[in-house]
Amino acid sequence: MSSLHFNRIESLRSLMRRGGWDAVIITGTDPHGSEYPASRWKQVEWISGFTGEAGDIVVTADHAGLWTDTRYFIQAVRELEGSGVALHKMRVPGQVSIPQWLAEKFPEGARVAVDGLCQSYEAISALDSFEIVDVPDMLSTLWSERPDIPMTPIETLSEEEVGKSRGAKLESLRGFLDSKDCTAMLVTSLDEIAWLLNVRGSDIDYNPLVISYLLIGKEEVSWFVRKDSLEDLDPDTLDSFEELEADGVCICGYSDLAAGLSQEQDRYDRIFVDPSTLNYTVGKLVAEIYGEDSIVWGRSPVVLEKSVKNEVEIAGFREAYYEDGIALEKFLFWLEQKVQDGEVDEWEASRKLTSLRAEIPGYRGDSFENISAYGANAALPHYVTPEKGSAKILPHGLYLVDSGGQYIFGTTDITRTVPMGDCTRLEMEDYTLVLKGMIDLSMAVFPYGTSGSQIDALARMPLWKAHRNFGHGTGHGTGFYLCVHEGPQDIRQNHNAQPLLPGMVTSNEPGIYREGLHGIRHENVVLCKEAGENEFGRWLEFETLSLCHIDTAAIIPELLGEQEIEWLNRYNAHVYEKLSPRFYGEMKQWLREKTLPL
Amino acid sequence: MSSLHFNRIESLRSLMRRGGWDAVIITGTDPHGSEYPASRWKQVEWISGFTGEAGDIVVTADHAGLWTDTRYFIQAVRELEGSGVALHKMRVPGQVSIPQWLAEKFPEGARVAVDGLCQSYEAISALDSFEIVDVPDMLSTLWSERPDIPMTPIETLSEEEVGKSRGAKLESLRGFLDSKDCTAMLVTSLDEIAWLLNVRGSDIDYNPLVISYLLIGKEEVSWFVRKDSLEDLDPDTLDSFEELEADGVCICGYSDLAAGLSQEQDRYDRIFVDPSTLNYTVGKLVAEIYGEDSIVWGRSPVVLEKSVKNEVEIAGFREAYYEDGIALEKFLFWLEQKVQDGEVDEWEASRKLTSLRAEIPGYRGDSFENISAYGANAALPHYVTPEKGSAKILPHGLYLVDSGGQYIFGTTDITRTVPMGDCTRLEMEDYTLVLKGMIDLSMAVFPYGTSGSQIDALARMPLWKAHRNFGHGTGHGTGFYLCVHEGPQDIRQNHNAQPLLPGMVTSNEPGIYREGLHGIRHENVVLCKEAGENEFGRWLEFETLSLCHIDTAAIIPELLGEQEIEWLNRYNAHVYEKLSPRFYGEMKQWLREKTLPL
Repeated sequence: MSSLHFNRIESLRSLMRRGGWDAVIITGTDPHGSEYPASRWKQVEWISGFTGEAGDIVVTADHAGLWTDTRYFIQAVRELEGSGVALHKMRVPGQVSIPQWLAEKFPEGARVAVDGLCQSYEAISALDSFEIVDVPDMLSTLWSERPDIPMTPIETLSEEEVGKSRGAKLESLRGFLDSKDCTAMLVTSLDEIAWLLNVRGSDIDYNPLVISYLLIGKEEVSWFVRKDSLEDLDPDTLDSFEELEADGVCICGYSDLAAGLSQEQDRYDRIFVDPSTLNYTVGKLVAEIYGEDSIVWGRSPVVLEKSVKNEVEIAGFREAYYEDGIALEKFLFWLEQKVQDGEVDEWEASRKLTSLRAEIPGYRGDSFENISAYGANAALPHYVTPEKGSAKILPHGLYLVDSGGQYIFGTTDITRTVPMGDCTRLEMEDYTLVLKGMIDLSMAVFPYGTSGSQIDALARMPLWKAHRNFGHGTGHGTGFYLCVHEGPQDIRQNHNAQPLLPGMVTSNEPGIYREGLHGIRHENVVLCKEAGENEFGRWLEFETLSLCHIDTAAIIPELLGEQEIEWLNRYNAHVYEKLSPRFYGEMKQWLREKTLPL
Repeated sequence: MSSLHFNRIESLRSLMRRGGWDAVIITGTDPHGSEYPASRWKQVEWISGFTGEAGDIVVTADHAGLWTDTRYFIQAVRELEGSGVALHKMRVPGQVSIPQWLAEKFPEGARVAVDGLCQSYEAISALDSFEIVDVPDMLSTLWSERPDIPMTPIETLSEEEVGKSRGAKLESLRGFLDSKDCTAMLVTSLDEIAWLLNVRGSDIDYNPLVISYLLIGKEEVSWFVRKDSLEDLDPDTLDSFEELEADGVCICGYSDLAAGLSQEQDRYDRIFVDPSTLNYTVGKLVAEIYGEDSIVWGRSPVVLEKSVKNEVEIAGFREAYYEDGIALEKFLFWLEQKVQDGEVDEWEASRKLTSLRAEIPGYRGDSFENISAYGANAALPHYVTPEKGSAKILPHGLYLVDSGGQYIFGTTDITRTVPMGDCTRLEMEDYTLVLKGMIDLSMAVFPYGTSGSQIDALARMPLWKAHRNFGHGTGHGTGFYLCVHEGPQDIRQNHNAQPLLPGMVTSNEPGIYREGLHGIRHENVVLCKEAGENEFGRWLEFETLSLCHIDTAAIIPELLGEQEIEWLNRYNAHVYEKLSPRFYGEMKQWLREKTLPL
């Protein structure tokens, strides 16, 4: 591994010398600013061996470094060994960002090469003291087996399935563009495109997206998506294209964006783009074709509109969490037997869970890679269960399973930490305090206008009072048969002015991680909804969508208040009431026992 | 009243015509950005009759308007009647600020006149599309009886009294200026000056401040403070000046600032100023004398340093709350007798309380005007108890008293809402829920780096769960024998990135206000302090400084949790333990009964 990556960096240095570049930046994202890129754009992994989800590489003549945050320090040290790549720590006091580091090392005007396709337009502006050399697909010349741009089958979703037709969505977006006095918008973020067009694909693992660009004018829409000749396409995709064309969407080649932009140059005299997701190469292209003055920079309104789920989507989420709960309860029943009977490891458990989800009609895959972690493994915040040699799950201590499914009627994300037998006092304390925080946040009522950062402390206070904490956010938005992480809202300590709005679906997942001992996370997903209006204002509350019992065996009841115990008993009774009609015999009896009041 | 103010506005309009001004802005602050100005700068009141603490006036040829926020709407309507001044509502949806309103009414380049002494440099920048006509002391020509700039006796505080000598404070500030590559700083905020020089005066009611400017160089310090000839000064002030001069502080005339700045022009090639408190007239002066390029704009570091109390100040606060508690308990005992015996009104109660505080050695005055409000009067957030015809306090319902003292060893601020006899179910519910929030915030533990906005919801959640709320912040910083309100920290819903730091003293004062019924506020002041460090980080908690029992008669115990009841019982027991040695007989017995566990 090590010499492999060492050699790749050396070959990049040859390229640098030929180009006369002082430094190269390689990022871990794709041309669409995706959180998880397709394998073609796992460039950081290819050159350094680092597989974490967040990290950028800088290579100079005499240095190679990986910039990543606290979550990945241990993993980075292990994976970078022998590669010659040094770790630069981010989100720590005294951190030095890439622009700062470069500014310290190189004079103004130094030549910094980037693959502009994989850098946001916004990020490049922080490097304005340098000469930026944009080399789209820079690594292709070195990376002989580099995967192609994916082109998986494309499906369309009907208005009945998603609650709003693509026509209505485009109309609403055009209303926004009118208000900004714009004649067009270039959408480059993949989940925004999928949402706007009501299309889904599987170009990226776990994310039902189609790699493409979308150009929206006052009347017409061009989707730059095709990577093959029409003859090479599967019948489903051809059907989808036909339906889209009937709706006035012009299907174009993914590589024809420049031509498409040029063609509309006269009509689109004011074009709206979001610099946080637009890549640098395409941003420059737009600026060249339309002129800087014709560009209107701003945040895409699609992000917010997409996050507020409509009635059909909400009904879909309820259905998804119902089916998902059935699968998860079957899994937990199976697991308990298996662990008691003898041998099961984390990997086997993970496969079993996926196979149970796969039985659900409308299942399209998992929404992220299952985290199936026993004992101390669960303390690694981004543990990846190994296919071979994963840990045995023993009949004591805690097992953590964080998983979710993609269904055509919704996306799920749920974590249960399960006592497999006797637990230590510390395990039980941590288990109870994390649960207490999750319940306290679940019970919150708050005025319209409240943001997640204003109520995040509710989920943490029980831990804080015991001088314990967790290093990740408490909650993230989730998409509807889209990405399991989506904005604009979240629940975390960092300030985020976006209020929680009725219709938003957000996770509630406090945790605690003790290296070498155990890791605990309790995660439900909650729907924000109206709770009435009076002289003090308009009130909102959460409804928990997730349906899977919370094991009471590891709870220390004295650490919970009366209302918390009441919430828990009501929740478990609700789970039994909803799910038990689908179970019989031993399994039903098991769930009955699991959901008895504390 | 009405024709008086109408005529004053008309006379201002004459001035406007002579000057060729399109609009005049009159603000309610002084040349130092003070929250409460001396009477000389109560210009909004003089011209409009409006006495609220926050409001600005705009006069044009055909319109006069007062811009103020929600707290003052009712009061403004009453006080402005007949003056011809219209109310412009701020902090409401769709609000139109003064710059927006002017921009809608006048073309670019219109002439807007201001008294630049009473406008912050920062505020004027929002008016950059207009021609600003700066007329310092504009109203003096119309306002024949305008009060002079105050010059009250000045006292100095020793290192023993405040914990840090003025020499050490100035040295620390010079370290900051070095770090910014600055050779001087002009300090214009009065509480910063008082803190830096360890001086106090009484130029402003309730605020022990000295109206002055302070110019700090690398070696020398000039204090622009004298408004009289030396012979006219009282002996205390002369002693203070002598002490300051011995410490190297040059005493200058308040009106000699321009000359002083000019004199140092060559030595002070980079001068640091804070545009949030610097007034426009002086800002222009600095820019003229030193040149725009020599000015370094930034937030004054004094604000933060002043807010973190040292050991001497913390000991002083404990002493102040001990003495203050004695006075307040005496008052509450007296009040209960008086109300039961027969007749007492809000004003009489207020005077009694002040007289009890005045008995404390080191008392220098109240820290703000007592709010002494019975029944529905307490629902007015800024109720001013009238000297004549104030409401009788009856032996039922709730009486609210918000008050504080200035002592040479600290500043206090405390609110108690007291059941005077039978209360309605709603009064008791509100009383208990507000108290529950106050207790929940008191019990908070949080990691180093947490800001007030991250824990504000703790104080509100009990009310929020009952769909109730209050419209003010939960907590403000308080000074040490300085202003009862000070920054930079606070506890409120609005985002404020400033973390709560060990040594900060902040109020904890949730409330609820029901027009026509009752108003409730429970306010303690808390010290932020270290609570240990472990693998999860560095922990902070609050220690309650206020010492006065919380009446349990209006509590509905079922609405409190076990830990909240425990906190309350412990607090009341602590109050008894600390204060009772100073009481005898009936009074001691009374306090014993008031502090019995719930």
